[in-house]
Amino acid sequence: MKAIGVIVEYNPFHNGHKHHLDEAKKLSKADCVIAVMSGNFVQRGEPAIINKWDRARLAIENGIDLVIELPFVYSVQSADIFAFGAIDILNKLKIRELYFGSESNDVDSLKEIVSTFNTVEFQTRIKKYLDEGNNYPSASGKTVYDLTKRRFTSNDNLGIQYINSISKLKSSIEPKTIQRVHSNYHDKNSDHASIASATAIRLMDDPFQYVPKNTYEALKGNTYTWNHYYELLQYKIISDPDLEKIAFVEEGIENRFKKYIHASSFEEFLNKVYTRRYTHNRIRRTLINILCNIKKDDYSELNLLNGAPYVRVLAMNENGRKYLNLNKKEIKTPIISKASEINNMMMSIEVRVTEIYDKLLLRNEFKPLIYNKN
Amino acid sequence: MKAIGVIVEYNPFHNGHKHHLDEAKKLSKADCVIAVMSGNFVQRGEPAIINKWDRARLAIENGIDLVIELPFVYSVQSADIFAFGAIDILNKLKIRELYFGSESNDVDSLKEIVSTFNTVEFQTRIKKYLDEGNNYPSASGKTVYDLTKRRFTSNDNLGIQYINSISKLKSSIEPKTIQRVHSNYHDKNSDHASIASATAIRLMDDPFQYVPKNTYEALKGNTYTWNHYYELLQYKIISDPDLEKIAFVEEGIENRFKKYIHASSFEEFLNKVYTRRYTHNRIRRTLINILCNIKKDDYSELNLLNGAPYVRVLAMNENGRKYLNLNKKEIKTPIISKASEINNMMMSIEVRVTEIYDKLLLRNEFKPLIYNKN
Repeated sequence: MKAIGVIVEYNPFHNGHKHHLDEAKKLSKADCVIAVMSGNFVQRGEPAIINKWDRARLAIENGIDLVIELPFVYSVQSADIFAFGAIDILNKLKIRELYFGSESNDVDSLKEIVSTFNTVEFQTRIKKYLDEGNNYPSASGKTVYDLTKRRFTSNDNLGIQYINSISKLKSSIEPKTIQRVHSNYHDKNSDHASIASATAIRLMDDPFQYVPKNTYEALKGNTYTWNHYYELLQYKIISDPDLEKIAFVEEGIENRFKKYIHASSFEEFLNKVYTRRYTHNRIRRTLINILCNIKKDDYSELNLLNGAPYVRVLAMNENGRKYLNLNKKEIKTPIISKASEINNMMMSIEVRVTEIYDKLLLRNEFKPLIYNKN
Repeated sequence: MKAIGVIVEYNPFHNGHKHHLDEAKKLSKADCVIAVMSGNFVQRGEPAIINKWDRARLAIENGIDLVIELPFVYSVQSADIFAFGAIDILNKLKIRELYFGSESNDVDSLKEIVSTFNTVEFQTRIKKYLDEGNNYPSASGKTVYDLTKRRFTSNDNLGIQYINSISKLKSSIEPKTIQRVHSNYHDKNSDHASIASATAIRLMDDPFQYVPKNTYEALKGNTYTWNHYYELLQYKIISDPDLEKIAFVEEGIENRFKKYIHASSFEEFLNKVYTRRYTHNRIRRTLINILCNIKKDDYSELNLLNGAPYVRVLAMNENGRKYLNLNKKEIKTPIISKASEINNMMMSIEVRVTEIYDKLLLRNEFKPLIYNKN
């Protein structure tokens, strides 16, 4: 069986994702598509609009064969760590090709950019831009432009990091791009007939024309935004005198959090604490770590460069199950479904953040969903 | 000026309190009545039904001259520590007499009970009862009965602790009892014409006949119960892997908290975690410390046996102000009103618990209220 991989958040699954998946299947002629998907908190530092179990189900219903959870400690991270965690899992699962969306749709150009990353010149220049007060994405964009005269978008940045991680892991995975159509991930306006960005869709009153029917139905159920957690965040920031022990809290930013925590909404709070030094994404990721009470000490017990010590199935169909069975000897990492099957720091963090995310609904532990494709 | 003291919670101020205050004034012919009052969290381990600033105002409007805050670290405590913190403040303020309600109304009998406390026989017997699985109030009641053949109620227990603290502090304060009328503090039923317990009043839909008009009006405003904080408590218990570092958390009770925290209401949760080994009060006090994130380490930085290092005025009238002015040379402890006037661990805990209590209203810092008596 030929397996390919995609790295996704599906927050929520929309027509653009469906297009990407259909193209990947057509180009690869794969027998099995594996998605590594963020869990309940996503890379931009937000709770996923739909919980991970339902998002995994929607992924299967829309054509994915096997959905693997990207652990929290990789998903709520800058692009390089997010990419590394995801590629490492796909590498462990022995996929042959990775398909990712790209504005430039030019893998060679992205590889060229990656080749500059570990040069002394890159390190010197990026340090200069950072010292001038640029945030990291901006500094690396400027550095790449200086060295290659190529500009890359935030979406291509993820592709670059995937290629970089494949290289770091000396993996045989072949990176492939698929042209992104009609929408930029960060577009808040959407006027194309059937494709809009996830960000735009999350803000729509009625996203009917932009999402498959099952996503549309799911969005009528319980959805989650930072606003639902803002009161808990306020309480946490008020009640914790040791915020500097929380992961990602650096350079006294906790004082800005404490100063503005009485803002009347999360959005107002975020605008008040914003400084040029940090991206909104980085600030939100820091706040997710505060909400979930993840300490610097917790991270120092993990070795992120080793990758996840388990592969957790969130959902699969018969095809996905067949792939795992056929390859079980070659896959050296334990494949699990329930959290209780493994006992380590990475999973204990996963359990905690899942409980916090689910708190409003007070759910019990979910079982992974197993679907038949037809 | 002759000053007398009362130790109160006024949760809320009711006709029984008014009766007590009138009797104390009549018997003492005092020029000034000072109340040491619990702040936003009370001795039985609950948020006060009305915030401390409004309760202080109601106290002044109903005849108290000076309201002093009993710091959180003394108010949410067993009777002995609660009593010690309050008596220490009144002692520092040079009052002559303490008036407290008593079922037995027999000071000599209470003094006799106190005289047994530091005997070897008392210690031996109480240890035996505790080892048999009795909680502390029950064990001490049985011990006192064995040694004196006297029974004492939970309310007399506070009186006993006041007398014991006066003795420990070698204070010249003279303890005086006032007969409690027609109501037991823990009565949930109330059928007397105008007096009901605070507990009963808090549960009433319409307490009109049992409270002064101003209390009645205040009860129509924002009131606070554990239910308002239950979601925050759930979040705290779910998100803190180090609950055993919280003050009062002993003997693995945190595991019971984690086990039952998905109960649908605070009352259901409390009933589930209850064990004979602890009183409901002690469990609730432990939960208040969890809610307010007060650590064992915080307490070890305090020396409760030294008393509070400040006297904080919550409200006063001209009479109270005059008393403080006349005695300012003899009162060696700093008298403050705003939290920012003092910087130590006890006050930083006070600020934190006040912010958490007020969280739902997101209030700014209050200024102390100063009233004219007429």
